[in-house]
Amino acid sequence: MATAPGTPVGGKTPKTERGRRTLRALLDAAAEEFGDKGFHEASISGITARAGTAIGSFYTYFDSKEAIFTALVRDLSGQVRDFVGPRIAGIANHLEAEQASQLAFLQFVRHHKEIYRIIDEAEFVDPVSYREHYSSTADRIAQRLQAAEEAGEISAGSAEIRAWALMGINVFLGLRFGVWDEGSDPAEVARISGDLIAHGLARREPGKA
Amino acid sequence: MATAPGTPVGGKTPKTERGRRTLRALLDAAAEEFGDKGFHEASISGITARAGTAIGSFYTYFDSKEAIFTALVRDLSGQVRDFVGPRIAGIANHLEAEQASQLAFLQFVRHHKEIYRIIDEAEFVDPVSYREHYSSTADRIAQRLQAAEEAGEISAGSAEIRAWALMGINVFLGLRFGVWDEGSDPAEVARISGDLIAHGLARREPGKA
Repeated sequence: MATAPGTPVGGKTPKTERGRRTLRALLDAAAEEFGDKGFHEASISGITARAGTAIGSFYTYFDSKEAIFTALVRDLSGQVRDFVGPRIAGIANHLEAEQASQLAFLQFVRHHKEIYRIIDEAEFVDPVSYREHYSSTADRIAQRLQAAEEAGEISAGSAEIRAWALMGINVFLGLRFGVWDEGSDPAEVARISGDLIAHGLARREPGKA
Repeated sequence: MATAPGTPVGGKTPKTERGRRTLRALLDAAAEEFGDKGFHEASISGITARAGTAIGSFYTYFDSKEAIFTALVRDLSGQVRDFVGPRIAGIANHLEAEQASQLAFLQFVRHHKEIYRIIDEAEFVDPVSYREHYSSTADRIAQRLQAAEEAGEISAGSAEIRAWALMGINVFLGLRFGVWDEGSDPAEVARISGDLIAHGLARREPGKA
């Protein structure tokens, strides 16, 4: 996980490269600890043991187990964005970009299965972050759909409703074929869902691709 | 909630009409208690107080808080099925039935918002029931899609992958426009998603509807 961590919710931003590495190690350790044990069984000492840091380093950045959980949800949300973003950046057609983002998400999930348990547990532990994660993800998809509609690449229709539909496809295919089942081929899953989306959103007027 | 409860997981089936009413009252009360408080804060005495039954009645049907939670997940899963089923039963075209089921689910969620919190918490409290709920729901959708493909109503494609995609659409539109936001019109949401699904699954060969 090479992603640079964002500003911790506690507001303490590392000033040195060493501090940034420590914060990254704490967040990665927290993903393992919360992913393995769930929020209630997880402990700060479990996180620092996994991170190989002293307890004092934890309190440099976070006030509590709740605080690092909130920072972790935001961090994971950012990791998805940072993983998918570059993989669709060079694709001029917005609809093709949307399909590529579905494949990228499936590939991300294969290597970060803990993201489901952590985001899902946020519904109970930190409902504000839970809602923020899905709202901001849907907003990014809606922006792409809006641009696609303006470029004449897709039919007209509510970008928000369609964005939530596409996010639902992503999340459930990721659960079934990423978290539950490693046997399936992500490219094949993305091909089937991409076909559904492409034809589902395609322009209906004849004469233009 | 007039749905007849299924056999409780504990195996104790009511033999009288009065027993069936008590069991129904306990499950409805459990939906309120778990929906309001979450599993860990919820209590058996809270459930029996809401149901207006004696504690002894609870133990006639369930051994524990875990047992009624498991029975409730199965009951809610069945309630969705029993609510949607009759609303699509008279529709000969499978694709139209699929669209009608999306609208029916949105309508169900508006009046049973607690279902999200309870099913989602099952991921942590009772993972087997959680998986069973989504697997059986996806199986029902896949059967409709298989029949639609055999009837030549939709294009060929993996019924399982498509079923999980459609379920994802259902669940996330239900979260956004059913649980979070009552202001939107379920018929409009279902129209947009139904359009996406209809064109996404439509036969591509010309000459046939």
